[in-house]
Amino acid sequence: MEKLNQQLDFILEIDKLKHVYRQSLVKSDNNRFENSAEHSWHISLTAQILHEHAVEPVNISRVTSMLLIHDIVEIDAGDMFAFSNEKALVEQEEKELAAANRIFSLLPESQHQTFKQLWLEFEQSETSDARFAKAIDCILPLLQNMRNEGGSWVNHKVRKSQVIKRNKHLEGLAPKLWLYVCKQIEHAVQQGWLIDE
Amino acid sequence: MEKLNQQLDFILEIDKLKHVYRQSLVKSDNNRFENSAEHSWHISLTAQILHEHAVEPVNISRVTSMLLIHDIVEIDAGDMFAFSNEKALVEQEEKELAAANRIFSLLPESQHQTFKQLWLEFEQSETSDARFAKAIDCILPLLQNMRNEGGSWVNHKVRKSQVIKRNKHLEGLAPKLWLYVCKQIEHAVQQGWLIDE
Repeated sequence: MEKLNQQLDFILEIDKLKHVYRQSLVKSDNNRFENSAEHSWHISLTAQILHEHAVEPVNISRVTSMLLIHDIVEIDAGDMFAFSNEKALVEQEEKELAAANRIFSLLPESQHQTFKQLWLEFEQSETSDARFAKAIDCILPLLQNMRNEGGSWVNHKVRKSQVIKRNKHLEGLAPKLWLYVCKQIEHAVQQGWLIDE
Repeated sequence: MEKLNQQLDFILEIDKLKHVYRQSLVKSDNNRFENSAEHSWHISLTAQILHEHAVEPVNISRVTSMLLIHDIVEIDAGDMFAFSNEKALVEQEEKELAAANRIFSLLPESQHQTFKQLWLEFEQSETSDARFAKAIDCILPLLQNMRNEGGSWVNHKVRKSQVIKRNKHLEGLAPKLWLYVCKQIEHAVQQGWLIDE
């Protein structure tokens, strides 16, 4: 039963991700802030729907697992807005690594290593699976903001160049998605949802 | 671009699942009601952690996909408390089928069929993947209630026999989990969180 108890401790610990709030707004729920648990669900399923657009083949099962766990570290480290300054983002990386060490170590040893490696692979973004997972993690907030009159972009006065930089890796990974994103960014600028610089 | 637009319409439609609230309480967030999107994330990952306990081999990739989509129908049909009366549960089934027809048909035809079939497989619970997915969907609220002084059981005056009936299929599917559940139920009765009948 020891192994099962470790697994159940992990399962109950990650309940806390439902209490980590992001800058994204949930249009369908009176524009409240989105939490990282429901965001993780949404991007996992988004990856399942869109993976055919990846130029390099991806293992969608691994991508899904990555996306299910990618934000768990925020239980300790909190969420960091994607367009925060560089210094804050570097500090966040250190906090997240410490969080990964603590939270995944709740699991039995073999699962601890498997899930931590998968999380590191996502963070390092060097494999085709991780690059695609990261791209999906970037594109979904864009889709949400476009359906919500700019959403978190407007609240944080985000610039067009920041959104292009954040999504540009799509150009090589999934050209059809990149084309779509470019059109959306232009439309957002025209609407005044992104600053034109 | 037509196919991509259909996929994006689906991805944005399912955002509404974040607005469907269940009877389960989120202990880590001041005992607010849990929504079906974050619940779907939690059980998808729970299945990934616990699938080794299944007696029959399961395809965890298919189980995960099932769990990611299993509650999407609640966007139209709403959530129904697991221990509602039989008549209400039958009416709910009809609403959910209509919802599946509407929501999955937003997708391009091949994905529409794939995901609708997967949802039906989950509902019918005849394959080993679907039976395991259903079992996980039942066990997680129990874990949450046990860490929360009875949680939704107390609010709804739930009886021990109802919880046993709801989880009994675990006995054949994953005996180790069933043994754990039985002990938890006994403890819940002793604590007065479940009615002893």
